[in-house]
Formats: sequence, C-alpha cells, structure tokens
Amino acid sequence: MTATVLDGKSLSLQMEAELAVRIQALKAKLSGKSPVLATILVGDDPASATYVKMKGDACERIGMASRKVILPESTTTAELLQEIDQLNADPLVHGILLQHPVPKQIDERICFDRIDIKKDVDGVTTLGFGKMAMSEPAYGSSTPAGIMHLLRHHGIAIEGKHVVVIGRSPILGKPIAMMMLNANATVTHCHSRTRGLAELVGLADIVVAALNQPEFVKGAWIKEGAVVVDAGYHPGRIGDVELAAVIDRCSAYTPVPGGVGPMTIATLMAQTIEAAEKYA
Amino acid sequence: MTATVLDGKSLSLQMEAELAVRIQALKAKLSGKSPVLATILVGDDPASATYVKMKGDACERIGMASRKVILPESTTTAELLQEIDQLNADPLVHGILLQHPVPKQIDERICFDRIDIKKDVDGVTTLGFGKMAMSEPAYGSSTPAGIMHLLRHHGIAIEGKHVVVIGRSPILGKPIAMMMLNANATVTHCHSRTRGLAELVGLADIVVAALNQPEFVKGAWIKEGAVVVDAGYHPGRIGDVELAAVIDRCSAYTPVPGGVGPMTIATLMAQTIEAAEKYA
Repeated sequence: MTATVLDGKSLSLQMEAELAVRIQALKAKLSGKSPVLATILVGDDPASATYVKMKGDACERIGMASRKVILPESTTTAELLQEIDQLNADPLVHGILLQHPVPKQIDERICFDRIDIKKDVDGVTTLGFGKMAMSEPAYGSSTPAGIMHLLRHHGIAIEGKHVVVIGRSPILGKPIAMMMLNANATVTHCHSRTRGLAELVGLADIVVAALNQPEFVKGAWIKEGAVVVDAGYHPGRIGDVELAAVIDRCSAYTPVPGGVGPMTIATLMAQTIEAAEKYA
Repeated sequence: MTATVLDGKSLSLQMEAELAVRIQALKAKLSGKSPVLATILVGDDPASATYVKMKGDACERIGMASRKVILPESTTTAELLQEIDQLNADPLVHGILLQHPVPKQIDERICFDRIDIKKDVDGVTTLGFGKMAMSEPAYGSSTPAGIMHLLRHHGIAIEGKHVVVIGRSPILGKPIAMMMLNANATVTHCHSRTRGLAELVGLADIVVAALNQPEFVKGAWIKEGAVVVDAGYHPGRIGDVELAAVIDRCSAYTPVPGGVGPMTIATLMAQTIEAAEKYA
C-alpha cells in the first residue's frame, strides 16, 4: 500500500494564498490598515521564540500585521494580565496569541482565560473550549483545528471511525478528542495512566499521537491501513510515532516536520482573519 | 459474585443530613434567611414538572428555600433570558436550575449560558464545562458529578481503568467522559454513530450508559466483574442497561430507580449550598 502523505506544508501554502486575498479585501474595510495579530512571548525559551517568529513570518507572508509583545522571564501574572487587558481593549488588534508555555511563576490558565473570546484566535480559553465542545461557534485550538482541516482536505472519513487520541493537554489532546467526537468518531482517550496502550492503539482507524515523547508510539502497535497523525516534534526531525516502522502499512500519515506544524500556523492565521472579518 | 449495589438513595439521604447541618450554619450568616435555589420550569412536560417538584421537595427536606419560577409553554427565548437575568441579579438567590428540556422554540443553549457562573449550580454553562474540563474550579453537571461521588463513596477505583461512556449529551455524556478522564481513566466515548458497540462495551471496566434508550445496552455485552452505571430511567422502572442479564456477573451496579437519580438531586443541593457558602 502506498500511504497518502498528509502534507501540511503544501496545504498551508494554499491556505496562505487564499488568506492573502481576504486580507486585501479586509484592508479596504479597515481604511487601508492591515488586520493585526498580537503575539506575546514571555521569557527566554528558545523553542517558544522560534514558534513566535514563525507566526510573525507567516503574518508577513500573507500581508497581515503582527504586534510583537516581548516580556522578560521574570514577568508576573499581574503584569501579563495587564498586557492582555491592553490588547483586549485595543480596537486595532484582532487576535491575540499567548505563546505556550510561559515561565513557571505565571498562572498560565488565568492568563489564557483573560483573552477576550472575540480575540481568542488560538482557541486557548476555557470558554472557547466549552463552546467548541457544545458545537457553539468558537475558534478551535489551532493545532487540533489544523489537524481536522488537514484530514478533511484529504477526504479522510471520520464519522463512525474509531479514533485513539494519546495525550490530554488543554490545547491539543482534550480539544482534538472533542472535535473528533463532534465529527461523529468513536473516541478512545489515552494518556500516561493508560494500561494496555499498545492494544488500544491497535484498535484505531485513526491514531492521534499528542503525548510529546519522541517515538513513544511504536509502529508495530498500529493497525494496517490506519491513519497516523503525529503532533510531536523532537530533535532529529522525529515525532511521537515511530513513523519509519509503520509508513508501509498505514493508509495515510502526517510527516514530521511538514505535517501538523504548518497547519497550526495556517489555522492561527485563518482564525485571526475570520475575527477581523467578523468584528472589524 | 455478589455485586455491590451502588445505592444512590441511601447516599443521598446521608448527604441530605449533612447538608441540613450546613444550612443551619448558613442561616446564621444570612441573618436568619435560608439559602435559595431558584428553579425554572418552562412548559407542560409532565416529566420535567416531576423533576422540578422532586428538587423543590429536596430543598424542603434540608431546610433550603426554593423560588419556583413557572413559565408557559409559549415562552420565548427573550422572555426566559429576562427571568434568568432577574435571578442572576437577585442577591437572595444562590443557585439557578433551568429544567431541561425547554420547549422547542427556545434556544436552550443561550439560556443555559446566561446563567451566572457563580449561580450555575447545575453545571450547565459552556464556561462551567470548559473550566471543569481544564480542572479549574466549577460546579460539575449534577448527574455526572453525582455519579462520580457515588463511585468514590463506594471506593470504586477509577485511575487506570477503562471507562466506556455511551451517549454524548451536553449535561451527561460529555461531562462524565471529561470527569473520568480527569480522574485518570482511559475513556472510550461511544454514541449513536459508533460501530461495534457491543465489542467496545466488552472492554470496559466501568460502563456508563447515558443514551436514554430502554435496555439498549445488553447484559451479555458487559465484561464479567465490570461496574455498571445506568443513567437511564424509563417506564417500567428500567434503565438503559438490561440489568437483569448482568446483575450476577458485574461487580457493582446502580439500581434503577434509586441509583443515579437521587444523586443528581443531592448533588444539586450540595452545589447550591457550596455557592451560598462561597458568595453569601
């Protein structure tokens, strides 16, 4: 079987081209101004700095403005909340991204939840999660929303399929499980306390690995013909799945890199533009 | 094997006795006034009228006041929202119960979400669901929160167990799946579009039937020694599980009636008192 490559890089470029056109239309509405994504980077984590830079670069490619807020490692919760309040109040800002993770002295949940739901284009608030879970309008968390888009783009059937999600983080595992459930999949949600993980993974028509452990999910666990979504990214260009061992037996897979990662950024862009179209 | 009866009736009576004591303490704080649960019943559904009456009776048994709002079948969304706004603003009201379901011309989701999170003692708002899902303080939806309490009271281990939830309603299936996940269970979430339901149920250490179909879940599907939680209630005193066929093989089960139902009401009472203690 030749597996379909779920090429997120390629789809994200298509999305960017479409978004660039919508931005031109938006500019007319905004008296010549570009919509704005505010990005907040707190502290010195080099990976976070890279992710924020990639998001700023994507804004630039499609003609969207970004407002870069950079705060020191020593920032307090109160200081970060104040920054968020300012961005919430600023009519020129259409979306707010607070890069996860923040330094450990900050209460990340309180800060995420301070983001105005109208500007929560990265889908990180508890309110946004609750709305999405109840099929109400809300911006989904970028990474899981990007995965859903990628699967749909490739015509991967979800309804009635058995999806096994591994990992239960607030911005990935929990929302993707809920999105899959709402798309009529049967969802088995596994995590660090799960017993018999290999057998459960073996039941999956679609495996979503989001546990952030290099090649933790062995290729041999995965059923022949399954779809493999790998949301991990680790040094050595590997993900959470031992992809080399399953690539000849699965029906489709996301490459690492170039699968889930670019979809996260493109989804963030798309949701920011949607917010600008809606509230500008 | 003699199965443990997860006797919700008995536990609810114990809870009521404890709650009555807390209400006496609260009255001192409230200058002699009782805490108040407002109940809203819209329309002529006889089952809903019965449920609201049972909740009012429970208030009376424990010395809590209830404010009964009864609205006609023809009530509009706007009219119901206005009632909710009044109860939100009233400092004498500590909790609000909007009995589900409301007549079909009403947008139930908008009405649920209008309830102030501080008074959402029945755990029906999307914000409350989101907070609960992210392990933030929030009142859980009464029925699933009552089930969790009943299982814990009987020392049923949840961590690392495989829980199969059948049904995905906003106030039962979705929240119980999330509560089980947060209690470190591996959760398989099934519903009307699930294929191979019998086999999946057969994997469960704990089965939660919440699909509202009389005896849809066959006793033979259930693994020997499993725990059976039946949230259904249908004419003829039967639930969603064919209980007679599994009662000799399971390790514990909720009877119908007298299992989940009384726990729903006791949980609603407990959460109203918690709200009164917190905000009075």
